[in-house]
Amino acid sequence: MSRVIGPSSENTRSAVLDLIRSGGVVSRVDLVEASGLTAASITRIVKTLIAEGMVVESGFGDSTGGKRPTLLELNSASRFAVGLSLDDARLTYVVTDLAGNLVGRLVSKGIGGTLPSVVVGRIRDELEVLLRQLDIDRGDVIGVGVAGAGRLDATGGILRSSLSATDWEDFDVQEALEAASGFGVILEKDSACAALGEFWVGRIPASKDFATLYMATGIGLGIVIEGKVYGGSSSNAGEIGHMILDVNGPDCWCGSRGCLEMLAAPLSVVRHALTDPQLVETLGLSGDPSELRLDFALIGRAAAQGDEACVALIEESATYLAKALVSMANLMDLDHLYLAGPGFADAGAIYYRIVRDHLDRLTFMRSVHSVHVELSEVGLESAALGAAAVALQTRLTPHQASASKVRRAV
Amino acid sequence: MSRVIGPSSENTRSAVLDLIRSGGVVSRVDLVEASGLTAASITRIVKTLIAEGMVVESGFGDSTGGKRPTLLELNSASRFAVGLSLDDARLTYVVTDLAGNLVGRLVSKGIGGTLPSVVVGRIRDELEVLLRQLDIDRGDVIGVGVAGAGRLDATGGILRSSLSATDWEDFDVQEALEAASGFGVILEKDSACAALGEFWVGRIPASKDFATLYMATGIGLGIVIEGKVYGGSSSNAGEIGHMILDVNGPDCWCGSRGCLEMLAAPLSVVRHALTDPQLVETLGLSGDPSELRLDFALIGRAAAQGDEACVALIEESATYLAKALVSMANLMDLDHLYLAGPGFADAGAIYYRIVRDHLDRLTFMRSVHSVHVELSEVGLESAALGAAAVALQTRLTPHQASASKVRRAV
Repeated sequence: MSRVIGPSSENTRSAVLDLIRSGGVVSRVDLVEASGLTAASITRIVKTLIAEGMVVESGFGDSTGGKRPTLLELNSASRFAVGLSLDDARLTYVVTDLAGNLVGRLVSKGIGGTLPSVVVGRIRDELEVLLRQLDIDRGDVIGVGVAGAGRLDATGGILRSSLSATDWEDFDVQEALEAASGFGVILEKDSACAALGEFWVGRIPASKDFATLYMATGIGLGIVIEGKVYGGSSSNAGEIGHMILDVNGPDCWCGSRGCLEMLAAPLSVVRHALTDPQLVETLGLSGDPSELRLDFALIGRAAAQGDEACVALIEESATYLAKALVSMANLMDLDHLYLAGPGFADAGAIYYRIVRDHLDRLTFMRSVHSVHVELSEVGLESAALGAAAVALQTRLTPHQASASKVRRAV
Repeated sequence: MSRVIGPSSENTRSAVLDLIRSGGVVSRVDLVEASGLTAASITRIVKTLIAEGMVVESGFGDSTGGKRPTLLELNSASRFAVGLSLDDARLTYVVTDLAGNLVGRLVSKGIGGTLPSVVVGRIRDELEVLLRQLDIDRGDVIGVGVAGAGRLDATGGILRSSLSATDWEDFDVQEALEAASGFGVILEKDSACAALGEFWVGRIPASKDFATLYMATGIGLGIVIEGKVYGGSSSNAGEIGHMILDVNGPDCWCGSRGCLEMLAAPLSVVRHALTDPQLVETLGLSGDPSELRLDFALIGRAAAQGDEACVALIEESATYLAKALVSMANLMDLDHLYLAGPGFADAGAIYYRIVRDHLDRLTFMRSVHSVHVELSEVGLESAALGAAAVALQTRLTPHQASASKVRRAV
C-alpha cells in the first residue's frame, strides 16, 4: 500500500475504510504508513469503524520487536449495497456485501413504454420484496446505485431522452426513487457502471486504464482511468454510439448521419431482418418495437447456431462495432477492452471474433502493442453489479467516487 | 493551494518548486500548509533551491501575530528550456525561462526527405547558434523537449513511421539528440505538446479537461485530463487522424479505410486540387510531394481570400474534421477544444466556422452543455512552446510529468 491521505482530508474516515478494504488484512501500523496519518488519528478512526461494525479485529500479525500487532479486516457482511440496472427489456437488481460480493438478485420486466412514475413505484415494491427475501435490515443498506441508458443531465438525477423512452426526458429518477424508497440513490450511465463492475469485481488491476463497451438497446462505452470512471465535463463520456462511421450513412436521431448506433445496434439488426419475410417467419420475429430486444435475441441465438442469414446480420453489426472500436483504440490508446451487456448474451462469440480480428489487424499502434479484448464474465448482471459498486464507492471511497457524485457536488 | 505531497515522495524537491511556481509568491508557512511537509523539511528544501538560484526571497508578507514571513518566488530567469518542433515543413526552436515565457526563437527548414542523422547534426549546430545569440550558458539549460509526428515506440525515443518519413521508423531520436547535443532530451507527440503548450501558457485553468487538435502534415489530438497530458497505454493517445469516418472511403496507409487523415489532411486537399488544371496553374501548385505543405498553404491562402474552388476544398476538409470532432466530443464529453498547428495558419477561420457550427448542432450533449472551440493563439509555435513545457514539466513537476517520461520510467 502506498496511497497517501492528506491530514486535512474531509474523507479521511472513508479513505481509511478503503485502505482496510483494499489491503485485505492490515495492522494499525500499516494504516499509519499507508495513510500518512498519525497513530492517534488511526486509533480514533478505527475505533469508530469497529463500533459501527464495519471493521473487525481478526487475530495478530508478526511482531517486529514489540508486542504483536492486532490485525483489522473489513466486516463485509455488516452492510449491503443495492445495484439496479434500469433497462428497456428487464430490470435487474443485485444486492452485494461491502466487498462487492453478490448476495442476492431479482429480475423483473423492463421499462418498455411504462411511465417513469409507475416504474418508480414498482421498484420501491420490488426492493422491499428482495430485501425481505434476503432477510436484510433496511438500516444496513448503504445505498442504491442505478444504471441507466441515455444522457445524464448536468444537474444530476435526470436521464435525458434515449431512443425509446422520451418520457424520461425531464424526470428526476434519483429524486423520485429516493422519495419512494427512502434510500440514498445515485444514478450513473449503464456503460460506466459496467466498466466499474469489471474493476470492482477485481479482474483488472487498479493501475490499468481500460474501456468496457456496453450494448443493451443502445451502445455506450465506460472508460476507466486510474481506477476511476472517466466522466468528462458532464458525466456523459463514452457516447461511442454516436461516433460517425459512415458520413453518407442513414440519418441518426441525434442529428448526425451514419452513427454507430444506427449501423450496429439491435434496432438496426432487427430492421434488416424484418426485410426478409422468410427470416421473419422462421424465427417468429414480432416486429413490434416494444419487443425489439426479444427479436434481437432470436436473431442472435439463430446466428450462434449457424443460421447463415443471421450470421451475416450479426457479422455486419459486429464489423461496424469493430471499426468504431479501432477508432476508439486509436484515440484513447487503450490496451484492454471488455464487451459487456445483454447485447452480447446470444451471439457474443461472433462479436468477439470480429472485434478481436479488427483490433489485431487495424489499430494504429499494433506494431507497438496489441489490444486485449474479452467478453465480460459478469454477464447480464454487469451493469447492476457496477451500479452496486457505484453505491459502495460513493460510500467507501468518496475521494475517488463516481463521476455522477462529483457532478452533483458541484 | 491545497495539493498534498507525501512525506516519503521521491519528488518532494521538485514538488515544492512547483508549489512556488504555481503559487506565484508564497511564504514557507504557505508551503508547509500546501505540502503537508514539516517546517524543517520545507526550510531545508527551500535553502537548497535558493542556493541553486532557482528561488529568490522577495520581501515580507503580512504578520499573523509573530514576525512577518519572508516571501519566496520562482527565479524565472535562472534556468531555460528549449522546445523544438520537428516538422516536415520547418523546424521551430523556442527558448523559454523557468516560467515558460518565450525568450527567443529560431526557425529553419523542415525535415522533408532528409535522413535522420543529418537532421540531428543540423539541430546540434542550430541549438548552438540559438543559445549563443541569446547569450545563454549551456549549463543553465535544463533540457530540450522535442515535438514530433507519428507514433512513439513503447521503449521511448523512437518515432514510428509517419506518412512521409519512413527513415525515422527505427531511429532513436531521443538518444541521438542527447549524444549530439549533450542536453537531456525528451520526445513527445506534437499534438500532446500543443495541448500542453495551451495549458502551460495559462489560458486554461488546471481543473479543466480539454483537447487540442493539431494539424501539420497529419492530424493528431492532444488530450489534457486534470492538468496532465493523457497518454494512454503507450503514450500514443490522440490518433484521431485514424478515426474511421467513411467505412466505404479510400484506403488509408494504416490499413483501414476512410480515416480522417485520408479525407481532411493537407495531402488530401492538395490531391483534390491537383485534379483541377486551372487551379494548378492559377495557384502555381508544384504537385511535388516534398512541397506538399507549401501547396496546401497556397490553397489555404486563396481560400482565405475567397477563391471559390479553394473555399470548397477547405470546406470539405473542415467538414470531415468537424465530424471527427463531434464523434470525439461524444466519446470524451469534453467542453473545451482548441485548433492549433501550421495546418490552420492560412484558412483557420474557415475551419473554425465549420467546426463550431458542427459542434453546436450535432454533439450528443448539446442540450446539456456546449463545446467551446477556439483557434490557438499560440500560433505556429504551439508545438515548440509545448515541447519546452514538456522539458519544464519533466524537471519541475516530475510527479505529473509528460506521458513519455512515465513511459520511459517503466
